[in-house]
This record gives sequence, structure tokens and C-alpha cells, in this order.
Amino acid sequence: MREPDNVFHLAIPCRDLDEAQEFYVTRLGAKLARRYADRITLDFFGDQVVCHLTDKIDPRPEMYPRHFGVTFRHKDDWDRLVRLAQARELEFFQEPMRRFEGLIEEHWTFMLIDPSNNLLEFKYYLDPRMMY
Amino acid sequence: MREPDNVFHLAIPCRDLDEAQEFYVTRLGAKLARRYADRITLDFFGDQVVCHLTDKIDPRPEMYPRHFGVTFRHKDDWDRLVRLAQARELEFFQEPMRRFEGLIEEHWTFMLIDPSNNLLEFKYYLDPRMMY
Amino acid sequence: MREPDNVFHLAIPCRDLDEAQEFYVTRLGAKLARRYADRITLDFFGDQVVCHLTDKIDPRPEMYPRHFGVTFRHKDDWDRLVRLAQARELEFFQEPMRRFEGLIEEHWTFMLIDPSNNLLEFKYYLDPRMMY
Amino acid sequence: MREPDNVFHLAIPCRDLDEAQEFYVTRLGAKLARRYADRITLDFFGDQVVCHLTDKIDPRPEMYPRHFGVTFRHKDDWDRLVRLAQARELEFFQEPMRRFEGLIEEHWTFMLIDPSNNLLEFKYYLDPRMMY
Amino acid sequence: MREPDNVFHLAIPCRDLDEAQEFYVTRLGAKLARRYADRITLDFFGDQVVCHLTDKIDPRPEMYPRHFGVTFRHKDDWDRLVRLAQARELEFFQEPMRRFEGLIEEHWTFMLIDPSNNLLEFKYYLDPRMMY
Amino acid sequence: MREPDNVFHLAIPCRDLDEAQEFYVTRLGAKLARRYADRITLDFFGDQVVCHLTDKIDPRPEMYPRHFGVTFRHKDDWDRLVRLAQARELEFFQEPMRRFEGLIEEHWTFMLIDPSNNLLEFKYYLDPRMMY
Amino acid sequence: MREPDNVFHLAIPCRDLDEAQEFYVTRLGAKLARRYADRITLDFFGDQVVCHLTDKIDPRPEMYPRHFGVTFRHKDDWDRLVRLAQARELEFFQEPMRRFEGLIEEHWTFMLIDPSNNLLEFKYYLDPRMMY
Amino acid sequence: MREPDNVFHLAIPCRDLDEAQEFYVTRLGAKLARRYADRITLDFFGDQVVCHLTDKIDPRPEMYPRHFGVTFRHKDDWDRLVRLAQARELEFFQEPMRRFEGLIEEHWTFMLIDPSNNLLEFKYYLDPRMMY
Repeated sequence: MREPDNVFHLAIPCRDLDEAQEFYVTRLGAKLARRYADRITLDFFGDQVVCHLTDKIDPRPEMYPRHFGVTFRHKDDWDRLVRLAQARELEFFQEPMRRFEGLIEEHWTFMLIDPSNNLLEFKYYLDPRMMY
Repeated sequence: MREPDNVFHLAIPCRDLDEAQEFYVTRLGAKLARRYADRITLDFFGDQVVCHLTDKIDPRPEMYPRHFGVTFRHKDDWDRLVRLAQARELEFFQEPMRRFEGLIEEHWTFMLIDPSNNLLEFKYYLDPRMMY
Repeated sequence: MREPDNVFHLAIPCRDLDEAQEFYVTRLGAKLARRYADRITLDFFGDQVVCHLTDKIDPRPEMYPRHFGVTFRHKDDWDRLVRLAQARELEFFQEPMRRFEGLIEEHWTFMLIDPSNNLLEFKYYLDPRMMY
Repeated sequence: MREPDNVFHLAIPCRDLDEAQEFYVTRLGAKLARRYADRITLDFFGDQVVCHLTDKIDPRPEMYPRHFGVTFRHKDDWDRLVRLAQARELEFFQEPMRRFEGLIEEHWTFMLIDPSNNLLEFKYYLDPRMMY
Repeated sequence: MREPDNVFHLAIPCRDLDEAQEFYVTRLGAKLARRYADRITLDFFGDQVVCHLTDKIDPRPEMYPRHFGVTFRHKDDWDRLVRLAQARELEFFQEPMRRFEGLIEEHWTFMLIDPSNNLLEFKYYLDPRMMY
Repeated sequence: MREPDNVFHLAIPCRDLDEAQEFYVTRLGAKLARRYADRITLDFFGDQVVCHLTDKIDPRPEMYPRHFGVTFRHKDDWDRLVRLAQARELEFFQEPMRRFEGLIEEHWTFMLIDPSNNLLEFKYYLDPRMMY
Repeated sequence: MREPDNVFHLAIPCRDLDEAQEFYVTRLGAKLARRYADRITLDFFGDQVVCHLTDKIDPRPEMYPRHFGVTFRHKDDWDRLVRLAQARELEFFQEPMRRFEGLIEEHWTFMLIDPSNNLLEFKYYLDPRMMY
Repeated sequence: MREPDNVFHLAIPCRDLDEAQEFYVTRLGAKLARRYADRITLDFFGDQVVCHLTDKIDPRPEMYPRHFGVTFRHKDDWDRLVRLAQARELEFFQEPMRRFEGLIEEHWTFMLIDPSNNLLEFKYYLDPRMMY
């Protein structure tokens, strides 16, 4: 268990703030906490993601080494997010799939790509010890 | 408050796994969860950071747009981490300082740089509404 | 998640305190916290509702823009309240129904009307991100 | 203590959505959860407030019988919000004051007025039994 | 929800401390916290029951007005205690039964009698609002 | 720590329901959950106390073996209740005092007597291990 | 319920630190918190186990009187650990089994043996009162 | 943070059950959960310690490699236990002291020895990251 009162903080590049707000708030369901001329700050599943306006956009994003997201403790939370991503036609970088079947590291995962080419991964592990 | 059972997940580049383990576990006090040939996974203040072995290291890291860390709810948690970083001589990318004094966004912050040039920021806001 | 120690506070008009206590405490299952000559205060599903004696009663209440209630995280809490409202013959302003089927905003809802024409809505969303 | 997983739900009138978002999100520090053509939904201190576009604005709001807000369990949360309201020059309907001094009902309170004439009250009681 | 850090405190009469310890600790599964010459103190399902040595034993206990026990939030906790009481042959003052069927006050209940004629009631309500 | 979802349940004798409601709700700050012809049920500091109408009132109550109340984890909760009892002139059966000074069992305590001669004790122990 | 902020602390003998880290971290899924020349410290299912380098290894370990482990509140946590132990071929000192069937003390259990002959027991009780 | 619903389980040798109960329950303030002919089970600061009757008593206990206890998150919990141990004249194997002053591993500690020569250590770390 993690401390419910603290917040993980992640800053990512963003080429357009309106576009980022559309992706994260209107479609993905994050909440807009603050908006400034050069950034928006988000309550992203309980943690903080900040989208900084920049021209340092990764033109050809790859799965490794950079991506971020949430690992859910319960499978139905992962399922509901798959449903949301499909219903609202978010762009999948990787379709929902099961990985490492039969191993203790077995998990369900999918990846989205945001309008600034940041990759988001959402996971569910069968064995909660593997969440870390 | 965030959900204590879920985990934020962040993957970052790393040029050497031993070096990363030395920085994150031995010195910063994160916990080693898993070690594979190409990555180590960490319990980083209750969330998950994964260091992926890669040669895509940022040669000239800048504060924006990429960094990550923790925003603490209580000031003494931030103070203790400053003390740890100083006592164990971690490299500061930015010394502990107070920012936006007098504004509601006022906060205490410092930034570290890890051996693979990833930037870590640790913050404490006077007004908890600003944590997001 | 919200902070369990704080309390949302709502003051509403009421034409008769006994009648309000009968509706909220005896029938709906809220708890009477305090009673004064001009108001009763209620522990309403963990938050505070205060009924102020007044003659400013809305003669023709409409669904928008004013109503209040609880959005439950778990469906069985919503189901039990439907059962209570039906068994105790509370007056429905809108019968239990499913709204926005197929959308991520899909939810179950019903509305009650109290003796002072205040409207109460109780909801359950399939996707907890839509509770806000 | 209230259930941290449920959410209190309040719908209020609003004459202009941009103006409401400016007041609640940019200045008061609530979070924007969703925005539609006719409403915005807010994460308001952990509960949900929905601002519905309407022309039913109360031209002469009075303290009773309608207002809403938060009763904090800890005084420093109340103090911080006073500081925010003053620093950001929110309009006070009633200045911060101590009420019922010497009685068990003694509490600290202030009231704000939003651009659509809704009244917000934020309180702190010395005796937590009086929060309800 | 109640405050997990506080403890309800109940003192009851007891004609023999060994007998009381046998009933509450060995058979019912409470924990012995302290033992003095004139009393034993128990961690009774998380609250405190103190058995005071006395000759004021009620010779003909009746269901009303005095009894005590626990109301469980989840039915399987009630079920497990029924199983324990039956397996260990505790004396039932009233067999497990369903009361007020069809009403919102509907609940499952049984009563035990301890060796000093104190009555214990354990309940489960279908509607958690009725636990108070 | 005790389970926050369960409730301790205590039934006590009561000679007059209005008088009991006046004592427990209006003056002591408990909440009225339900009222029937022969009983009132209370949310008493998070647990349930039921006052049953009866003529079995104890004419000469003594401290032992029967009394009930709350043991607080934090001293300021005990202090606030002393303040309430004094300000509202509740009848003390025993004035606030410190008992067993110097021993590990040392605690602060006071006793009230309700209109039906039930004794209530409220305590605070310096060493939380002694709460049981 | 136990206090989530405190940590149980157990020091055990270990003949080789690498071997211990392999067993506890790589295979059993505990986390490496700290490593010194003479010990490793582990986050072992939320508590702390310290493996001290020593030659005091028990050559013929027996089930009693020394062993340690975790008693899970929910059966699926126990099941998942059985699956992990089997999939990763940890050495069982005692195969998964049901003990005391039909008694209230009935539980599921298995024992592992670590490379330094320490015995680990993992249990699940049908009646949570028996966890202590 | 650890999971409040699970329990750490430790079995230790004991030469005499009455003596062990006297030490752990009567003097140290643990609770007796169950007593059998060959063992007593304890609620030891929220976790489970089982004392097994045996003649395998360590005649010359040393600090390493075997001892157990609790690491407290808050200093006043450690202080209160020092006070209890001194007031009730428990035998110290090591007096209360500060260790590793100036290092991040700095902590307060003391060790007790039980009648069967088991060593108990109670600690408080200035930096909570060092609790593991």
C-alpha cells in the first residue's frame, strides 16, 4: 500500500495545451487542476501529471524506455478503462493483451498514445506482489 | 486523497543497472522489487519506477519538460528527504528553495539528477489544493 | 477518494421542521444531529444537511438547476436505497432508471422530492471516473 | 467519519460556464472534471458540484436558507482557505469570524459569493460533534 | 463509519473471573487484555468489555432492556460467529433468526447468555443505515 | 485499531424517551438514528446505544459493575467532552480526575449520570496499550 | 486490525547474503530495502525481515518452536502465494494443506524453507478471530 | 504502509506458559488470544506471536542473529514503551540508546529479554524510509 496523502508528480512534454486538455480531461477522464499559459496540471488517477508546452516532442516514440501510467489493484478497474478507451476511440499504441501468461509476472496491459506522442500504459497483475 | 491500493507506473532510461540500483536503493532509500537482465523495478516512495537499460540517455537534461518525483503532504517528510540527500551527497540539480513566495502556489522544492541524467523533483506545497 | 474527516455542508429551505424530520430521519434514514427553533441539522449519509425554517419554498421545483444527493461507489448501496424508498413509499420525482446507456457517462439514478419541494438525486456510475 | 468512496452531489445554477470555471477552478482551486455545453462538473474538495447553465439566478441572495460548503475537521485547513480567498481576492459575502463564542456550537466561518450569486460557507468547529 | 482509534467501553457484572475468561476468551474468541484481582479486561471484537467481580448478578435476565454485542457490516462475519457459537456449544438465549422480514429494519440476529447471565446480541442488517 | 465498519451495540433502560433524547442528543451531542414507540436508537460516538422504555430503572446506581462510555485515543477529544459536559451542565457522577498516577494504567476519567440513572464513563489513557 | 504505519521487525540467521537475496527478493517477491556487508534488510509483505550473516545456522530445522510468516485475511492472497511458490519451485517444508478441519481453528497452511534453513509459514484462517 | 488486515506470524520457544503469559500479557501489555496445553498465542502490537512450550531454550542469547520486535512510526509510541518497561521493571538486554547518530540510519532502540531468553527490540527511526 502507498501513502494516500502524498502524490506522485510527473512532468511531460506537450505541443498544445487545448489538445492535451481534450485528451486527458474530456476523453480520458482526468481532472484539470490548474491551467497556466505554459502548462496544465492534472489530477491523473489521483497523482499529478503536468503537461508543459514545448517543442521537444518525441517524433518517433517507442515503448521503451519512456512511458507512464497506472497499475490497478483490481481487474475491473482495468476493464473499465479499456471500455472507456474503446468507447471514446482513444488511439491505442498497443491493444489490450495478456503478457507473460503462466509466469508470476503475468499481467494485462494496453498502451495509449497522447497527441504529443507520450505513451501511457495501464496494467493489472494477477499477483499483487508484481505491481512493483 | 489517492487510492492506496493502486500504483503509479513510470519507465525511465538507464545506462547501467548497478549504478541505478546504487543511486535509487542504496542512497535514495527506494526498494528493489525486481531485477532482470534489462531493467530493475523499484518501489519508489510507494509507486513503481522501472529503469530500462538503454543508450537513449539525455545528454543535456533540462528542468522542463521532463522530470518526476513526489509531492509530500507534510513538510517534515520533505525536510527529512533534504537531510538524506545532503547527508548522502546526492547530486542536486537544484538546491532546496522556496518558490512563488506569497502566492497560493508557494512551495518548497529541490531537484536531484540520477546517473542517467533523469531529473527528480520533490515538493511540498503550503496549500494542499496546489498538490495537483 | 475524498477526505473522510471533513464534511460537505448544505443548507436548504424547509416549511416545517417536524415534517422535515419525519421525511429525513424517520423515513429516509438520516440521523438527527441537532434541533433548534429555526432549523434541524442532519447527518445525511455522512455529510451535513441543514433544514432552515423559511417561507421561501419553491412552488414548482424542476430537475435543473437545483438538486442534491449522493453518488454511491457501489451499486448495492444504490439498490438498497431504491428498496428503502419503495418500501417506505417516499415520493419519487423520477423513477429509478438507467441513463446514457452505452456511454461512459452511463449511470443509474432516481430522484425524490421532500415535503418542502427540495429534490434529491441518488446515482451510481458504472465508471467511477464519472462520479465527478 | 464519512465513507471516503462515496461522493456528495450538488447541482447549482450558473449564468456563464467560463465564469464559473474561472471562479471554481482557477481561483478557488476546485478541479474541472467534465465540461459539456450546458454544465461543468467539479471535484469540489472531494465532493461533486455541478454548475448548470440557466437563467434562474437568484438576484438577491441571502444567507438563509440556501448555501453550501465544507466543514473542516482541522483548523489549519480552514486557515489556508481563508488565506487563499484573501490572496486571490475572492468576494466575501461574510468576512472570516468567530460565531457563538463560549457555546459548544462555537465555530469559525466565512462566506463567499460566486459569480452566479451562489453562497459558499466554510466552517471549522472547536468541538467535532458539532460538525453535523 | 466509526473512528477506528477510539474504543467503546462497557463494564458488566461477573460472578467468577475464571469462568468469564473461559467464556469470552477460550470459547468466544475475545482477547484477554488485563487481569486483576477484581476484574478482567477484554478486547471484545475491537472494543473493551470489562468483567467486574460482583454478587450483583441478574438472576432472571430478560432480553430488554439490557444487552450488548456487535452489529456486523458484512453478513459473512455474522455467519462465521454463528458457526463458532454452534461448534463450541455456547448457550443460545435466542437462536439465530431473521427479524422484521420485508421491512427496512430487517436483520439477522442471535443472542448468547454468558455464565453471569449477561446477554449478548450479534446482528446483521440488510440496510446498513439501520445499524444505528 | 478496531474495524471502522462494524458497530458496538448496547441496550440500556430508559424511563422516558423525550428525556433520553434531550440528554443524549440535545445535550451530549449524540445523533438520533431512529425513534419508535418503545425506544430510541442513537449514533453514540460512532457506536449504537438503544434506550428501551422500561420501569426497570436502577434506583441507586453505583460505579461498579455497570457503566459504559468511550475511551479516546487522543487527549484533546477527552478535553473537549469535559468542556461540553461543563458548559451544558450535565450531571457529573464523578468529576474529571486523574487516576493511578505514575502507573502504566494512569488515565483521565469522568462519569456522567443520565436521567434514567445509567452511568457513562469517558476515559483517556496515557499508554494506548491500556485502552483494552 | 493492526496499525498500518508500524512495522514488525524480525532478525534471522543467514549463511550467504546473495543466496538470501535470491530467495527472498528474486523468487519470493519481497523487496530489498538495504544491503550492508553483514546483512540485507527486506520489506517482507509489509513488515521488516533482516538476514544477518552468521555461521549459526540451524542444521536440522523443525517446525517447532521457530518459524515465521504471514497470516492472510483473504483466501485469494494465500492462493496466489501457493501459485508463486509452485511456479517458481520454492522448496516446501510442508505442502499446502488444510488443518483442524471442522474446528473453529481450521486453516490452510504451507511451509517453505529458505537456504539458511529458516522456516516460513503462510496461513489463512476461515474465522478471522483465529488469526491471533 | 503495510496492509492492516494481514498479520505477521512468529513462533518462538518458551519454557513455561504461565511465565510467558505473565511477561507478555501482564507486564508488556500484549493480549492473550488463545491458550492451549502446549502454547499461548498473543496479539503482540497487532501481529501474532506464538509461544511454544519446548526445552530448546537458547542458554546464551546474543543480539545477532535472532531477535524480533516493533519499529514504531512515531517517537511517542517508542517513548511510552520505554516508560512501561522501566515502570514495570522489565529486564533490559540493552538500555534505551541512540544508534548511528548523524547517519540516515539513525534510530532509537532498546532490547528486552523474555523469561525464555528471547530478545525483543523496539525501534524508532528518524527517517521512515529506514524502517525497512
